[in-house]
Amino acid sequence: MTDERVEADYLMETAYDPRAAAEAIAGEQSSGTFVPVPGETPELKARAAARVEAMQILETAEAPALPGAGRPVAGAVIQRALLTLSWPLANFGPSLPNLMATIAGNLFELRQLSGLKLLDVRLPPGFTAAYPGPRFGVAGTRRLAGVEGRPLIGTIIKPSVGLGPEETADLVRVLAEADIDFIKDDELQADGPACPFEARVRAVMRVVNDVADRRGRKVMVAFNLTGEVDEMRRRHDLVLACGGTCVMASVNSVGLAGMIALGRHSQLPLHAHRNGWGYLSRHPLLGFTFTAWHKFWRLAGADHIHVNGLANKFSEDDASVIASARACLAPLTAERPAPIMPVFSSGQTARQAPDTFRALGSVDLIFAAGGGIMAHPHGPAAGVASLREAWEAAVEGVPLADYAASHPALAAALGA
Amino acid sequence: MTDERVEADYLMETAYDPRAAAEAIAGEQSSGTFVPVPGETPELKARAAARVEAMQILETAEAPALPGAGRPVAGAVIQRALLTLSWPLANFGPSLPNLMATIAGNLFELRQLSGLKLLDVRLPPGFTAAYPGPRFGVAGTRRLAGVEGRPLIGTIIKPSVGLGPEETADLVRVLAEADIDFIKDDELQADGPACPFEARVRAVMRVVNDVADRRGRKVMVAFNLTGEVDEMRRRHDLVLACGGTCVMASVNSVGLAGMIALGRHSQLPLHAHRNGWGYLSRHPLLGFTFTAWHKFWRLAGADHIHVNGLANKFSEDDASVIASARACLAPLTAERPAPIMPVFSSGQTARQAPDTFRALGSVDLIFAAGGGIMAHPHGPAAGVASLREAWEAAVEGVPLADYAASHPALAAALGA
Repeated sequence: MTDERVEADYLMETAYDPRAAAEAIAGEQSSGTFVPVPGETPELKARAAARVEAMQILETAEAPALPGAGRPVAGAVIQRALLTLSWPLANFGPSLPNLMATIAGNLFELRQLSGLKLLDVRLPPGFTAAYPGPRFGVAGTRRLAGVEGRPLIGTIIKPSVGLGPEETADLVRVLAEADIDFIKDDELQADGPACPFEARVRAVMRVVNDVADRRGRKVMVAFNLTGEVDEMRRRHDLVLACGGTCVMASVNSVGLAGMIALGRHSQLPLHAHRNGWGYLSRHPLLGFTFTAWHKFWRLAGADHIHVNGLANKFSEDDASVIASARACLAPLTAERPAPIMPVFSSGQTARQAPDTFRALGSVDLIFAAGGGIMAHPHGPAAGVASLREAWEAAVEGVPLADYAASHPALAAALGA
Repeated sequence: MTDERVEADYLMETAYDPRAAAEAIAGEQSSGTFVPVPGETPELKARAAARVEAMQILETAEAPALPGAGRPVAGAVIQRALLTLSWPLANFGPSLPNLMATIAGNLFELRQLSGLKLLDVRLPPGFTAAYPGPRFGVAGTRRLAGVEGRPLIGTIIKPSVGLGPEETADLVRVLAEADIDFIKDDELQADGPACPFEARVRAVMRVVNDVADRRGRKVMVAFNLTGEVDEMRRRHDLVLACGGTCVMASVNSVGLAGMIALGRHSQLPLHAHRNGWGYLSRHPLLGFTFTAWHKFWRLAGADHIHVNGLANKFSEDDASVIASARACLAPLTAERPAPIMPVFSSGQTARQAPDTFRALGSVDLIFAAGGGIMAHPHGPAAGVASLREAWEAAVEGVPLADYAASHPALAAALGA
């Protein structure tokens, strides 16, 4: 392990000499201090120094992207650049929280920079071997859900909050009878006194198991167990004991140490909800790309991660959505591919299936629709059928309108 | 608890009617769905609805602060506004992670918004009672460190990484003999193979205990235990068993569930390092203010939190630094003041003491200097003395140069 290094790529913006700015980041995040002190020998520095591995100069900017940056001289050119740094693994060892503190710690506010985004991170085998990673991923999720060769068709229980346990179970019965593959709690529904987790799981799993006994296939329900570490372990155990097949957590709210603890404990697929992602990503020159960010959760054990959806109700564009979904399916590392399910949601209907398939080139995904199922004019079963049909059409390359001619559920969904 | 509500304040920017945008946030983060579905009755919605409590229209903007926002009509005015929303506590119960997912979840990327910053959060007694909060805070930290009536003078072990356990202990001996109050690990030094946590703690605490036996006062050393939940608990127990008086964690890397677990377990002051804070805060219209963000960690158990320092090496201005420090000393809630120690660091020297005291009006803080101690021309003991003297001068309202006339350590620090 002593020779292994971690590499991270950044997009940076600076009014200083980009090489000097890069060295400042490397110094700040490894052996550096701004004032030489006794004990700081060249040997010590070399042992632990971060290295600038590559730099590619990009365009200049007219004004700094973020406030507070310094300028070495008035009128200095503001330069953008791609940057790759590397660290000795021996600096922090195979620890995701300490990796985070190193490659995404005290960097973003450096005065030399008017912008910094972490683009990607590459982890050596000595690092990834220390984590279980996704235990189910694409293949294990398909096995548990009993779905092959097409996306899992799913939905989110709405209203987000307001339903009690029995009301939730009633809704799950309607959806399970409609032959849906996947149902998830909203991220706002966890363990509030109006809908306690345990009562909800027991009520819902009675329905799920009952329908599974009659229909021979068990709908996968992602119960939102977001909470404290010991709570999450107990909640996981309850879902497992009740015959459930998935648990969900809001990863930005739980945090890395909590998700690692859950990942090490879990015997069920972990459905990672990314709410809060906006504050980490929305500025083009601050924070994280999905590619970099999702690797932390994937290595911690996430089997599914939300990626938004095409033509969504949020501010994210389609190219970004597809890049995120591709990242989930791309190998985590060469030694450990561990592909996981991207979860498409937010305003998704039958209409987005063809473009999603064309752009992604895969059916390894969870496609979660809301109104398209529950508000389908012929009822929820037709809603689910219409989404499956839309994906059949997408995979066969047949325009939706043509396919709808012989598929009434899809036709009704399209308003034809 | 059923009647209690949580309130959150935001700064938002929108090209839509600000009232409609506010209602969109409230709906998205409570009972809302974008398509009415069966089961969503007015009673259900009312039970769980978030409310717009107040709105104050501010200035208009020439261009959207963040990309991806919609505009209802071309040329629509982009408006900024202060907004207060409230939620029934019964939606999520007294859970910090679920509070985070609600008030700082899927909001920041809403298409209606071209900017959103969480400014503050107010928690009812039914929420705060569920958490231990800081167990030591200002008073408990002073008691353990044996320092009253002035700031704790501290430093950070440098180089950040590269020193082994014995080298670290040698440096701690120099600092402890110099009568320093507080020493902390760098956030990059946790448990890497080059300086394992256990070996470092044992080596350092041998020195700390030895010096304490001779001098009668024990230097407080914040050991960085950042890692997985069970690891952090074990590391805490080791520090406690060795006679240590503080542990440190990188809170953004550990995350909320991990910090809560540590807070519930800990019998030592928790030193919260905020590395990564830049990606959460640097854009003026995205993410968090320190005031809002720090309340999560404080309620989870943080006794000290980093606030940067005046004239620092980062991009943060002095007003922001002081606002953060004031937030640490302001009551958490009316029922639970629980003030905690703001930690001033980053390029701090004797020169910043007067302005810091004038702006903060308090000596309840940790003042961490690097080169000003280890590189003081008369050695580390004079470096520590010079910082104490600078604070004496600050409190007495005597200009540093005047005070230095009768205080040679301060005089040397000022280069006089």
